[in-house]
Amino acid sequence: MNNQKQNKDGGGVKRYGKFQKLQKASVQKSSGTQRVMQKKSPSKQSKRNVHNNKAVNFSSPVKIIFLGGINEVGKNLTAIEYNNEMIIIDCGLSFPDATMLGVDLVIPDFTFIEKHADKIKGIFITHGHEDHIGGLTYLLKVINVPVYSTKLTLGLIECKLREAKMISKVKLNAIKPKDKVKLGGFEIEAIHVNHSIPDALAFAVKCKEGIILHTGDFKIDSTPIDGDMMDLARLGQLGNEGVLCLMSDSTNAERAGYTPSERKVGESFENLFRKAGSRRLIVATFASNIHRVQQIINVAAALGRKVALSGRSLENVVSISKELGYLNVPDGIIIGIDAIKQYADDELVLITTGSQGEPMSALTRMARSDHRKVSIGPNDYVIISATPIPGNEKTVANVVNELMKLGAYVVYEKMYDVHVSGHACQEEQKLVLGLVKPKYFIPVHGEQKHLRKHALMGEAMGVASDHIIMVSNGTEVTFHSAERYTCEEVPSGNVYVDGYGVGDVGSVVLRERKLLSEDGVIVVAAVIDASTGYNLSEPEIYSRGFVYIKESSELFSEAKECVIRILDRYADSKRRDINSLKGKIKDEMLKFMYEKTKRSPVVIPVIQEI
Amino acid sequence: MNNQKQNKDGGGVKRYGKFQKLQKASVQKSSGTQRVMQKKSPSKQSKRNVHNNKAVNFSSPVKIIFLGGINEVGKNLTAIEYNNEMIIIDCGLSFPDATMLGVDLVIPDFTFIEKHADKIKGIFITHGHEDHIGGLTYLLKVINVPVYSTKLTLGLIECKLREAKMISKVKLNAIKPKDKVKLGGFEIEAIHVNHSIPDALAFAVKCKEGIILHTGDFKIDSTPIDGDMMDLARLGQLGNEGVLCLMSDSTNAERAGYTPSERKVGESFENLFRKAGSRRLIVATFASNIHRVQQIINVAAALGRKVALSGRSLENVVSISKELGYLNVPDGIIIGIDAIKQYADDELVLITTGSQGEPMSALTRMARSDHRKVSIGPNDYVIISATPIPGNEKTVANVVNELMKLGAYVVYEKMYDVHVSGHACQEEQKLVLGLVKPKYFIPVHGEQKHLRKHALMGEAMGVASDHIIMVSNGTEVTFHSAERYTCEEVPSGNVYVDGYGVGDVGSVVLRERKLLSEDGVIVVAAVIDASTGYNLSEPEIYSRGFVYIKESSELFSEAKECVIRILDRYADSKRRDINSLKGKIKDEMLKFMYEKTKRSPVVIPVIQEI
Repeated sequence: MNNQKQNKDGGGVKRYGKFQKLQKASVQKSSGTQRVMQKKSPSKQSKRNVHNNKAVNFSSPVKIIFLGGINEVGKNLTAIEYNNEMIIIDCGLSFPDATMLGVDLVIPDFTFIEKHADKIKGIFITHGHEDHIGGLTYLLKVINVPVYSTKLTLGLIECKLREAKMISKVKLNAIKPKDKVKLGGFEIEAIHVNHSIPDALAFAVKCKEGIILHTGDFKIDSTPIDGDMMDLARLGQLGNEGVLCLMSDSTNAERAGYTPSERKVGESFENLFRKAGSRRLIVATFASNIHRVQQIINVAAALGRKVALSGRSLENVVSISKELGYLNVPDGIIIGIDAIKQYADDELVLITTGSQGEPMSALTRMARSDHRKVSIGPNDYVIISATPIPGNEKTVANVVNELMKLGAYVVYEKMYDVHVSGHACQEEQKLVLGLVKPKYFIPVHGEQKHLRKHALMGEAMGVASDHIIMVSNGTEVTFHSAERYTCEEVPSGNVYVDGYGVGDVGSVVLRERKLLSEDGVIVVAAVIDASTGYNLSEPEIYSRGFVYIKESSELFSEAKECVIRILDRYADSKRRDINSLKGKIKDEMLKFMYEKTKRSPVVIPVIQEI
Repeated sequence: MNNQKQNKDGGGVKRYGKFQKLQKASVQKSSGTQRVMQKKSPSKQSKRNVHNNKAVNFSSPVKIIFLGGINEVGKNLTAIEYNNEMIIIDCGLSFPDATMLGVDLVIPDFTFIEKHADKIKGIFITHGHEDHIGGLTYLLKVINVPVYSTKLTLGLIECKLREAKMISKVKLNAIKPKDKVKLGGFEIEAIHVNHSIPDALAFAVKCKEGIILHTGDFKIDSTPIDGDMMDLARLGQLGNEGVLCLMSDSTNAERAGYTPSERKVGESFENLFRKAGSRRLIVATFASNIHRVQQIINVAAALGRKVALSGRSLENVVSISKELGYLNVPDGIIIGIDAIKQYADDELVLITTGSQGEPMSALTRMARSDHRKVSIGPNDYVIISATPIPGNEKTVANVVNELMKLGAYVVYEKMYDVHVSGHACQEEQKLVLGLVKPKYFIPVHGEQKHLRKHALMGEAMGVASDHIIMVSNGTEVTFHSAERYTCEEVPSGNVYVDGYGVGDVGSVVLRERKLLSEDGVIVVAAVIDASTGYNLSEPEIYSRGFVYIKESSELFSEAKECVIRILDRYADSKRRDINSLKGKIKDEMLKFMYEKTKRSPVVIPVIQEI
């Protein structure tokens, strides 16, 4: 960890002021539900909460600290503090964007947590997606406290701990929806929500001064694959008891209406699987979407097809889910990928990873004719059961194009209902706001545009506009009383993980990688006689990623002459300083190369004195 | 130019066989127009063409050669040959994708054209977008032949030629819609089409053996900003005369229905400009969309606002369009960007580039608070009048998020009708197919998924399925008679332009840049006594883009020890070969660094003997 951990959001804390006025008209239009969106008058509003009009200070302030998941989709990490005790909700990772060259993954900056390590009583995990559990092994190296979540989520966490050789050191506590965990002055209640992975939770964190509700990622699925609808009744109950602050998932805040039920996808699979006729079926989906995998298996079983899996993460999640009873697999239906040769095309369904066009994924390798077990041809019927995550549109389209060039029929994007989101749309977000009736509302989990839309919904649903708090990563919100809060900035930011290195790649290294990626590198090497200053051998010039060397011999011999001239002048000069010689060579070489090629490679002068 | 120019499509030529059967069901569903899509029986079909049933060979075969624009959106370049004479339609560029690190732009491989240079009579340009004119200056260095297009397109080309100091050497010929140019055995007729830039053309290329029709980019706008609807009547006439082969724009083949009229956007501007009230308006759009700029100016004038431009390309295009009479600007309405300080917010409309979130564009600089003349705040009403081009979704979202963080109100994506496409949707594509009734149909301008959809529409509109030709870049289609064609492969591919270099960056250089971008570079330097083999100074290790050097001193001193051990063994060995020493150092250093960091930097051993 070093000084390169910085708050990328600038840590700004914004009250929900002027903007609210500006955007109102548009949200009312786009949500299309003028009726429920009438603004409640403050007096009417305050009656709904138990915390009304009491300006009495809390015995100890209640704090919520945002260390990830704000102004981004990823690396969620929230801490709640009361009476010098703290709990953490989620610890995720995010995947590097195009500017983070060579970075494997991004985790939250733990500086704040390290500072408050002795206060932390436990970590509560909402569900088993990477943006909620992916930073956990790194966090547990900093603070070793018990982890609480449902069985499947813990199964996925166990797998990570085992890989990191930490399994024996960490205490994992399985909880179920409706369970209440007492931890110091907190009582944390687990609440069942629907999502694109089973066993997802919201948490109601209670302390003497009130209830703080964090939805985690959620949708409301009235016909879910794995049993119950989200526990809206409990949210309503809590709402009636009085919720001090609601943090709610903003991911789909730009989308009107409701997210369809996961079951919808099963119906589409049934239709498409029949349509595929005698062709081989290949379905790409997220490895962690057990509901989706279950539905594929169900339809395959009904049509008498065997199922083979391709992709390490998929095999992994399926094995854990089967073992823990989250996946119901009829005997003999899953076969090894090596066994597919023994079956006719119309006896097979392959489930693969790669629904986002990830370069090394199974589906991408199939599309590139680079998969060792599966060759794509005109008798393949491929279903991409996912929507491209923003930023992946191009890679997914490339996979579709390549599969088509091989003759496959491809169902992708919005052609049929082969994917539904795991996140709530506007109407669901409003339902939750309406049931919880929070005193304060903090939109979380989303980019600025999502948070803003969600904030408007909060206002439309009756939360007072000055009780809607727009936070950033690094915001610590302190509730001094039910009527007064303040915001401060705490250390936060991105820590880059690259190989074994955690935090040793920062802005300087990334800037160098960017320069190297654009115009490559040139090494200018010379050996100098320390006493006379004369060069002892012909200088050498090496390059990588700059030009096609074999066709540029003239360029390089001119460059060499340029270096020799500099060395000669150096030997003749009265005051010789090796560092200024290096600087001179670097500058002159850059100038020379830019004049000749209009490129600016990184120049490394290697001048050795003997 | 070197051996790194390759046909990236693999040059495969696919007849429209098996696939047609596979995808049919879905297209009929998605287009939703069963009635018009009934397949004509072959006998009925052939009556509609003059070329029916004549298996008599042409006196000379008619060839169409595809050198760009197939399986991609960009770098369009098509050649048509008859009787040893050739014309070219368009010569565009494409922009580098994420794998083409440091590449500025991509142009078609001209190997084929160089080989047939003496046959080429002229270059016909459909319109002034970069993917149709951006490769022209490079092509005109290879073959200097006359260029034909409309006034505005030539104005934009002139600007490029002037920059390349070629203006005096090239003959530009202005043509108008309905003009017919006789060139050798060809007669090329210009046909008016609608598009997102004025003055766009389709070309009907006639020779003794038939008519070849190339739509260029088009949409059908019945209420265009600049006068006439696309000349469908002429297409119908040509269809009745008999068209041997139609090449038609596939860009929007996935979209059902019709593309709305450009005028629709003007109506939205009127509403939004009024809604903006006292706020400053900022509208981002494509520089070349003169219709859009005209509509912004019209509404600004009506509401008494001044218009300022930000972005070099925008200023450039506006100035050319004004000069040539394509833009009607009331006196005094356009002010310099420096003058905006003299006006109140509600007296201003800024038009900017950057609608795609391009890193250096005006809007992106504003969003980053990095624009010298414009500071964004809560009194700004920003309209992004464009849809993200596939691949740009993330950069556009980033700009929206940053503008919102500064407090601005932002209209983006599908919030209102602030953008319409310049390309035909399915119903328009079918109209053209229905009017032209081509004997052969070749879908062009699009990725594989677009071309396939368009092919299906061709079939649904009555083109015989074995007369729908799926081509790649590098396909030469030869019509021997009205009933027989063959396909061959010719040289084609991507040529990368990087700075002044054209073709000197290829797969080797790009692979090196990729490696450099991921884990950086390490230089290991040592000086060896040529006679004894002993190292004459302590070896030095430099790195860039690898780790944060200051915090990695231990790593580097261990690495140095590793190098010293290798050098010592070398001195002691009986057979000393400097190249195998270099190889050894490279291998060992890679191994050492991978073990320590799990990273694989590029290692450059610099071993100098004296």
